[in-house]
Amino acid sequence: MTKHPIELVIKKADTAIVQEDFNTLIDIYSADAVLVVKPGMNATGKVQIRKAFEAIATHFNHTLHVEQAGMKILEAGDTALVIAKTVVSASNMPATERSAIYVFKKIANGDWLCQIDNSYGHELLLGEKP
Amino acid sequence: MTKHPIELVIKKADTAIVQEDFNTLIDIYSADAVLVVKPGMNATGKVQIRKAFEAIATHFNHTLHVEQAGMKILEAGDTALVIAKTVVSASNMPATERSAIYVFKKIANGDWLCQIDNSYGHELLLGEKP
Repeated sequence: MTKHPIELVIKKADTAIVQEDFNTLIDIYSADAVLVVKPGMNATGKVQIRKAFEAIATHFNHTLHVEQAGMKILEAGDTALVIAKTVVSASNMPATERSAIYVFKKIANGDWLCQIDNSYGHELLLGEKP
Repeated sequence: MTKHPIELVIKKADTAIVQEDFNTLIDIYSADAVLVVKPGMNATGKVQIRKAFEAIATHFNHTLHVEQAGMKILEAGDTALVIAKTVVSASNMPATERSAIYVFKKIANGDWLCQIDNSYGHELLLGEKP
């Protein structure tokens, strides 16, 4: 089965995270993208997102590994919702599966850019009052 | 705390579903919106979405009730990701909490429209092979 172009972008992002290739990584995000760094802390725009990934790399002793263990893409016009099982691990963190949520936008040249990157999914609601 | 405008739109949608006011309900969706009717079945565009809601209302003996029990909104440019605990019930279905995911888009006049409506969240991945 042909892969959705967004799957390839996510694969590229995961490889860039592992290789700490932040130039490639940041190209995948739109100018006003939001990254959930951890619940309660967001980074907005390429400068903040790059700094966040640099800090994350240091926090995990430059051993962070990210891969997808299942993915579903819902496309509507120039917007796509990605529902994924994302597995993260590092020398100081056992493999952890997250129910991640990503939103992508298709730009004029047909490329898909990440607009919202929330690898924590519904964990953001923990501790929230209804 | 002031409510995010999207919270008000979702409240309006929930009320419209309960009242089977499909004209109001369909106004909340963009022209190319996608609704997950159930895992494996999507409706695209206002005509299909309206038909789906009419069928859902009949399926639940016109007793469907929908409400939100927690919500987090991540805004990035003209796109917003909504992570919600959505509780659905009906005379023939006990109250069921779903980890719902909605994507909204801001249009030129500042209104937010629903672009992707996936009340099943990560349930779409059940049974999927990695």
